[in-house]
Amino acid sequence: MRDLTSLALRYEKGKLFVLNQQKLPMVEEWITCKSPNEMAECIQSLKVRGAPLIGIAAALSLADFVEKGASSDAIQKAAELLKTARPTAVNLSYCILEQMRAFEKTKDPKAIVHVAENLFEEDALLSQKISSFGAEMIKSGESILTHCNTGGLVTTGIGTALGVILEAHRQGKKIHVYVDETRPLLQGGRLTTWELLRSGVPHTLICDNMAASLMKAGKIQRVIVGADRIAKNGDSANKIGTYSVAALAHLHQIPFHIAAPKTTIDWNCPNGEGIVIEERSGTEVKGVSGTFGQIAWAPPNSNTYNPAFDVTPKSFITSFITDQGILKELQ
Amino acid sequence: MRDLTSLALRYEKGKLFVLNQQKLPMVEEWITCKSPNEMAECIQSLKVRGAPLIGIAAALSLADFVEKGASSDAIQKAAELLKTARPTAVNLSYCILEQMRAFEKTKDPKAIVHVAENLFEEDALLSQKISSFGAEMIKSGESILTHCNTGGLVTTGIGTALGVILEAHRQGKKIHVYVDETRPLLQGGRLTTWELLRSGVPHTLICDNMAASLMKAGKIQRVIVGADRIAKNGDSANKIGTYSVAALAHLHQIPFHIAAPKTTIDWNCPNGEGIVIEERSGTEVKGVSGTFGQIAWAPPNSNTYNPAFDVTPKSFITSFITDQGILKELQ
Repeated sequence: MRDLTSLALRYEKGKLFVLNQQKLPMVEEWITCKSPNEMAECIQSLKVRGAPLIGIAAALSLADFVEKGASSDAIQKAAELLKTARPTAVNLSYCILEQMRAFEKTKDPKAIVHVAENLFEEDALLSQKISSFGAEMIKSGESILTHCNTGGLVTTGIGTALGVILEAHRQGKKIHVYVDETRPLLQGGRLTTWELLRSGVPHTLICDNMAASLMKAGKIQRVIVGADRIAKNGDSANKIGTYSVAALAHLHQIPFHIAAPKTTIDWNCPNGEGIVIEERSGTEVKGVSGTFGQIAWAPPNSNTYNPAFDVTPKSFITSFITDQGILKELQ
Repeated sequence: MRDLTSLALRYEKGKLFVLNQQKLPMVEEWITCKSPNEMAECIQSLKVRGAPLIGIAAALSLADFVEKGASSDAIQKAAELLKTARPTAVNLSYCILEQMRAFEKTKDPKAIVHVAENLFEEDALLSQKISSFGAEMIKSGESILTHCNTGGLVTTGIGTALGVILEAHRQGKKIHVYVDETRPLLQGGRLTTWELLRSGVPHTLICDNMAASLMKAGKIQRVIVGADRIAKNGDSANKIGTYSVAALAHLHQIPFHIAAPKTTIDWNCPNGEGIVIEERSGTEVKGVSGTFGQIAWAPPNSNTYNPAFDVTPKSFITSFITDQGILKELQ
């Protein structure tokens, strides 16, 4: 496989590296992923995260496995393992299925490698298209709220929702970004801030519960977020808290956009009710965990609820910013 | 002054103690407050917190100062210091003004002590009245969302919003409580959970951004929160995030109640626009701090916004649960 480089994923001289996103923004640590098992662990533990990136990271891992001479049987097993490393992201199974289809068709394991290379480059191109379409819409002077992290860390390119924002800034539009910290895993507080600082974009970090009063005060002109999975009718699953932001934007009559490649649409899923929501460990709600250590502030005996995603109904979504343009309706 | 005891405040044999709420739920540490200066520090650093309790704690501190033989001048200065220890809570200035009025009227510093004793006992009675009125309203089987901490830790009695919940449970009603963790200071995650566990009330801790999807799923029948200050027209200032919950409850047609003594109403403040919102340090948003240590996860160079309160407009408030009954309109 040829060398490939993005902000959080690198294939270099036959070795696969991922940026450990759990350690950002304090430490920039690259992990060598030597097997599909290790990649599955990286995905499950959120070291590699974001719907587009985990698909491509898994694909590179399967390709790397092929390069190392894995048997057909072993490839099949690794594909299964990687495909199910996280339940909600459709990109993950999409990427692996693309590889396995090409393998079945050609009977040549090299096909798995070629598909991985193409996926990597296509994703960077998708990012650029999404960002360019979205940036057109943004007016100088706007303040934009975003939730979670959707930039260069989760794609092989500039990003989806954050890509739109970064591209608008790159074009010289004067924008300000409000960043939801995004409890419990703090992707906004740790990662989106890190990306915005890298690119010199003016921004303000807030706790998730502060967005509503900023909206009421007229300080937010637009909300842009990503999506992990979009149902056929437009209902969209994204990081927990997205529905909260969408509902509040709806109430305050603020445009709310989903930025995602069209591959995020699961045409087999008729609506949001069909989307399985992964529930994660309560320890995430009872404290925080990261490079800074693992701490808990809540009583160990309290019950918790910790869904990784929520579903925003189509009726609260102003438009979808996709690689094929801005869509009011999916088609 | 005679001995007085509540969950978080104690006057015993001429010594004033406050429970350090910054260290809960892991450590139960009582601090001796030897002067109004020390009490002002405890209030500013949120060791003593909650609108009703800080008023009474300040009053006890001024009374204790009198008992120790402070001069008229020193009393006057201490009153000023205590009155302005935090800007939003009207209870604080109410309590101190009551004491100073009695002092001026009688010219006897002992009047300051008597007022403190009365305030302490009246507050416990207020709590009980609020809780009894509110509990009548609650039906067995309901799930109730609350934000921040409003129980026995913030009053000298059973509490306000949480008092209503605790009283409903005490009466044998089968209820479930969803507890917003309440970023950035985590009063819900640390303190409300602690109080609910103490009283054996079934509850589930959530991150603030999860309440919306629970509402959409029909899992929340009622929201009850406290208030730090209520304007004449009913607009209510409370812990940051309250407006978010109120707006979401409004959108999902879920009853939203403010539970507070009528002394929380500032008749001199015509509406929410007149309420000054205290802005606190950005380090609170960039991490957490408590017994568990002080940690930061956000880049030091990112800007933050950290208002301590927000204002919920009267139009989103179903009713006020007060010591004088449940009111649709203030009067």
